[in-house]
Amino acid sequence: MSEIDRHDEMSGLHSEPFALAVDAMGGDGGPDVVVSGLAIAADRHPGARILLVGDESRLIPLLARYPKAAAICEVRHAASSISMDMKPTAALRVRDSSLRKVMDAVAAGEAAGVVSAGNSGAMLALAKIVVKTLPGISRPAMAAISPSMKGDVVMLDLGANVACDWRNLVEFAVMGEAFAKAVLGLPAPTIGLLNVGAEELKGDEKLRQAAEILRESPLASQFHGFVEGHDITAGTTDVVVTDGFTGNVALKTGEGAMKMASGLFRKVFTSSLPGRVAYFLVRPALERMKDWLDPRRYNGAVFVGLNGVVVKSHGGTDAEGFASAVDVAMDMVTHDFNDGIRSRLLPMASLTANRSNAEPERETVA
Amino acid sequence: MSEIDRHDEMSGLHSEPFALAVDAMGGDGGPDVVVSGLAIAADRHPGARILLVGDESRLIPLLARYPKAAAICEVRHAASSISMDMKPTAALRVRDSSLRKVMDAVAAGEAAGVVSAGNSGAMLALAKIVVKTLPGISRPAMAAISPSMKGDVVMLDLGANVACDWRNLVEFAVMGEAFAKAVLGLPAPTIGLLNVGAEELKGDEKLRQAAEILRESPLASQFHGFVEGHDITAGTTDVVVTDGFTGNVALKTGEGAMKMASGLFRKVFTSSLPGRVAYFLVRPALERMKDWLDPRRYNGAVFVGLNGVVVKSHGGTDAEGFASAVDVAMDMVTHDFNDGIRSRLLPMASLTANRSNAEPERETVA
Repeated sequence: MSEIDRHDEMSGLHSEPFALAVDAMGGDGGPDVVVSGLAIAADRHPGARILLVGDESRLIPLLARYPKAAAICEVRHAASSISMDMKPTAALRVRDSSLRKVMDAVAAGEAAGVVSAGNSGAMLALAKIVVKTLPGISRPAMAAISPSMKGDVVMLDLGANVACDWRNLVEFAVMGEAFAKAVLGLPAPTIGLLNVGAEELKGDEKLRQAAEILRESPLASQFHGFVEGHDITAGTTDVVVTDGFTGNVALKTGEGAMKMASGLFRKVFTSSLPGRVAYFLVRPALERMKDWLDPRRYNGAVFVGLNGVVVKSHGGTDAEGFASAVDVAMDMVTHDFNDGIRSRLLPMASLTANRSNAEPERETVA
Repeated sequence: MSEIDRHDEMSGLHSEPFALAVDAMGGDGGPDVVVSGLAIAADRHPGARILLVGDESRLIPLLARYPKAAAICEVRHAASSISMDMKPTAALRVRDSSLRKVMDAVAAGEAAGVVSAGNSGAMLALAKIVVKTLPGISRPAMAAISPSMKGDVVMLDLGANVACDWRNLVEFAVMGEAFAKAVLGLPAPTIGLLNVGAEELKGDEKLRQAAEILRESPLASQFHGFVEGHDITAGTTDVVVTDGFTGNVALKTGEGAMKMASGLFRKVFTSSLPGRVAYFLVRPALERMKDWLDPRRYNGAVFVGLNGVVVKSHGGTDAEGFASAVDVAMDMVTHDFNDGIRSRLLPMASLTANRSNAEPERETVA
């Protein structure tokens, strides 16, 4: 059937059987983490119906140990699985992998979305070929949520597209806004384009073109303009849009800096006896801070711009983290994430139709 | 005289009169901060001779208040100055600005280097046109030092070149290595190319080309290969090389994350009475941590790849910070920073001579 038919059917899918198809074999923890994660998810989404795909001989006994998970899951056997280090091109050739079968379930309209803790590259490649790109979107993107001083911020692209043009950036803005609405529950998320300065002339032509289009678009009132690296944690905007290379580096650089900071703080409390005493005095506050920064709150990343919801749980996550990934997927399904994108894309088409996509040299910033 | 003559003359300059030409009018603090900063610098570099350029009527009385600074400074009058927000193109037309005159002093061989807390864009534009690019370098870059868990790390480019090719990246590696030797005093600094993954196939063609050249170059034993965002604060390598767009975003994102972390940590100590008690217990450790992270330790950025040392102090710095910028400049002058670059470039020329500079699409990373 045509893509249009399929996703029109899908947009109603959250009211039908399988909300999600879950890859039981992905991630470092394998089925044990996935199934125990689903037991936690079952408490939060008692109505959910999960198609659990993987090695039956391992899943049946596991579900017996987790009745809560068993209550919402139906098992589908998959004879093989995609290893974490398999090249995407190789993964595409494995027809009976659990990752392939969850994608097939979405393509067939059996499930509205996918959750896997498996190989990101294989996941994106399979999603593009099996689930397919949303009509009107030129390239899917990888989005994630990171903390800021003003609340959570949606960042995309984080590496699905290492090189982008202005059209991609505009589409990322549309998808990021819909994601912030569906998952963060913001009524009118603000959007910033990541650049090396806030001035209109900074950065390169594709950034200026994307900004110009967004200023003329239905998102104009939510478009803040250019933001800089420090604006991400400052929470200047709810959504930060950038190309996949810059986004990937920025996300990992921010995580690295936070890790260095926590390491320094730990030293403050462990390097002396008074420090250890102080630790007990501020322990509750420190725990609150830790929870607030807990990456498991919103675990992993999401591939947006596909004919279905595709959520990537962090490979090294635990049950709690996997349950959070399921939360994100359920939010996207129940809030008709893709409908939000479609309704935005329609009026924008005219704005982008007659523009060339040539890209001159970037200007210097210093 | 030709560039070659000039810099051959310059390489010996640190033994001649003016070590540095200092722009007294740049920065938010103006001459007061600059002159009091030079008073601090005078203690650390008693032998240094400084050409202090700016408004005589303000500098003479200030130097009378700071005899230590007066002892190492000679004043040269400049009738005008470049404002912090003046466009580089406009700044180039002002012939009698203090910023122009410090650059002229280096071009004339009167001084080996420049320190200014002024307008970065104007500084880069004037340096390129007056001091000129080092022979064998296609484009100057902006470098800075940032803290990591293993010690200080040199990052470049931070925005002088928003778009770069493999040739620029290779030259940045050469200049970053020389900078780490001269300023951090490392005998054999390790070098990493910032990318979205450590695997050889990640990123785009210009990154793979640059890596290939560095592996064949005299820097091969110090070249670590690709590094990711989190490697910057992990201190995986002593030098991190990237294009000016990514470097600018990464630097500001890391600073933003550290700022958020300190804000959260402050809250731990101020949100409760036990917290305030705890604060007094760990105050010494906190102070040590603050000093260690103090941006004034190495203040501002450096423009490398020019026929002289060009150091940009942060515009909002205080006297201590300006003195640190002078330290950096003095280190670069006394350690023949540019000779270090020249000696590396020579054997590399053959490696880069026969390569095209075409750049295909980047690969996806996810």
